Amino acid sequence: MQTLQVDLGERSYPIFIGSGASRQKDLLQPYIEGKQVAVVTNETIAPLYLSQLEALLEGYDLVTVQLPDGEKFKNLTVTNIVFDALLKAHHTRKTTLIALGGGVIGDITGFSAACYQRGVNFIQVPTTLLAQVDSSVGGKTGVNHALGKNMIGAFYQPKVVIIDTDSLTTLPDREFSAGLAEIIKYGLICDAKFYAWLQKNIDGLMNRDADLLAYAIHRSCEDKARVVAEDEKEAGLRAILNFGHTFGHAIENCMGYGRWLHGEAVAAGMVMAFTLSERMGMVSKDQLTACCALLKKAGLPVLPPEELAPDELMDKMRVDKKVIDGALRLVLLKDIGSAYVTSDFDHAALHNVLKSYLTH
Amino acid sequence: MQTLQVDLGERSYPIFIGSGASRQKDLLQPYIEGKQVAVVTNETIAPLYLSQLEALLEGYDLVTVQLPDGEKFKNLTVTNIVFDALLKAHHTRKTTLIALGGGVIGDITGFSAACYQRGVNFIQVPTTLLAQVDSSVGGKTGVNHALGKNMIGAFYQPKVVIIDTDSLTTLPDREFSAGLAEIIKYGLICDAKFYAWLQKNIDGLMNRDADLLAYAIHRSCEDKARVVAEDEKEAGLRAILNFGHTFGHAIENCMGYGRWLHGEAVAAGMVMAFTLSERMGMVSKDQLTACCALLKKAGLPVLPPEELAPDELMDKMRVDKKVIDGALRLVLLKDIGSAYVTSDFDHAALHNVLKSYLTH
Repeated sequence: MQTLQVDLGERSYPIFIGSGASRQKDLLQPYIEGKQVAVVTNETIAPLYLSQLEALLEGYDLVTVQLPDGEKFKNLTVTNIVFDALLKAHHTRKTTLIALGGGVIGDITGFSAACYQRGVNFIQVPTTLLAQVDSSVGGKTGVNHALGKNMIGAFYQPKVVIIDTDSLTTLPDREFSAGLAEIIKYGLICDAKFYAWLQKNIDGLMNRDADLLAYAIHRSCEDKARVVAEDEKEAGLRAILNFGHTFGHAIENCMGYGRWLHGEAVAAGMVMAFTLSERMGMVSKDQLTACCALLKKAGLPVLPPEELAPDELMDKMRVDKKVIDGALRLVLLKDIGSAYVTSDFDHAALHNVLKSYLTH
Repeated sequence: MQTLQVDLGERSYPIFIGSGASRQKDLLQPYIEGKQVAVVTNETIAPLYLSQLEALLEGYDLVTVQLPDGEKFKNLTVTNIVFDALLKAHHTRKTTLIALGGGVIGDITGFSAACYQRGVNFIQVPTTLLAQVDSSVGGKTGVNHALGKNMIGAFYQPKVVIIDTDSLTTLPDREFSAGLAEIIKYGLICDAKFYAWLQKNIDGLMNRDADLLAYAIHRSCEDKARVVAEDEKEAGLRAILNFGHTFGHAIENCMGYGRWLHGEAVAAGMVMAFTLSERMGMVSKDQLTACCALLKKAGLPVLPPEELAPDELMDKMRVDKKVIDGALRLVLLKDIGSAYVTSDFDHAALHNVLKSYLTH
């Protein structure tokens, strides 16, 4: 079992990573405060992993909330299902909410925990690769609004994150690849050594080698934790974690949430951000080609959806949370392993990148 | 103009109190971060004070959100009206939300500010006496759920609070008295000298003497700020601010939100909590009689609604946020000016108090 401490002062918490981590009472129970526990999961994950988690919760006053599965249910209305269940069961502010599932479940549950009675205990048991390397660190919780993704939410830290690599055995291929997109992102933005390691080990990872996966998850969480520790509320540096995301969110938004997976959209978005960085002379064409090759080996798209028009994508990019006083800001690469956020980029080059990728 | 600093480390903020405070640009503008401002108000307040506030906001990218007036609209659905307006106007995370109105507007706007893009700038311009002495300090924001009051929310501090005593001239008598209930509460729980001052000056306050009101508001905010500074997230001491509220919330809940004003329910609730304290031998019958006399002079009820049954009220009291692992906790008086929170009270005495007040 590997342990990683996320260092955020009084909001610090451990991440446990390893095979069978979600079957160990001693990793979970010390982080439950009172007698009341609510497990929030969805209809896909429940048949696979719920009973195993419930076995660790004997003796607690337990409520289980099963939500429908999918990004399109990540909204205020579905969040209210969690509040209903908690209130009907008379759960108090000493209750503990456990998120068992992927990113959507983690985001809704974390946001519910942030808001229920103005904040209750929160534990994450992420079951998808994407959630394990993304939602585990950073405390971002929230839901979508019809007019924008993740527009309603809170920064709220869990008490512990338990990552069981065994849960990846049941993960569909597309979702597995979507997780790899975020892992590759960490290499690109802040960890050149890890990026080189990924290029060497991508085949083993695609074979779901348990040790390689545990290493990649640990290193990704470590990279993210380092960035978040320096900028918990996303005042500056933290925005580099959004590499590829301004493009990616716009793709998801244009296509309707759920048709492209988040990681797929981010992969195509990273290629566009990488290309802009290349046209601005910061990285080389060879590096861009190698990155596309890595993403392809990871089973990811390197082109945005054919049917999108450049202006359509641009419009959606303008509602990004990084926009300040109307100015679009992008995350670009100075080099492999070194990203930065800027509103001072070559707008003509951006336009050309959009045109070249979206006029097939 | 009086100024009071609420001391919460990096979340500290000033409260400005005085006649005409909401017409002074220099009190407001330094606390607006970007170019975007959203004023959230309601249909009652807008015709009275909106144009006056808008005059201070020339040159800003301004959105006004008018919500329906009343506690029954303090819910997630109405909160979403605020999110809709912000997103339609492309407001970013650098926007500033200004709450112009009473407690309901303050609570919804503060909660919206806490959740919009995971937290934006928030300013309060409370226009009712209750909001001025209660919501101004403490950072409690949130909305009601069909199954309980204030069950969904966040602790979120404003950047500044601007209290214009002129706005009290248009306040209906019932609402004015409801504000006095909270003012009297501060005297009872933590400020015996202020309580004595209130007994002496209640007639002047009822005549809405501007100087007396400014003093009472300042002193109330000061008392509350002292308690909150010691316990921002309500781990312990802060719960004394809920004196009368466990009973009061239950009354509001039983009657349907809005029929009894919050302050009216709290007044009746304080009498019940005071009576229990008296039966447990901590305060005298004379003190109880004097308190009831003061509340009556303030235009407040000293008895709960006739139609309630003791068991009905007790049931609702059990969903109070102060309940821990099933144990009801109450705020009681050791003496005038000295309250404490306990689950160790005389349950038979509580039952008798409920019976004596609710069996007419």
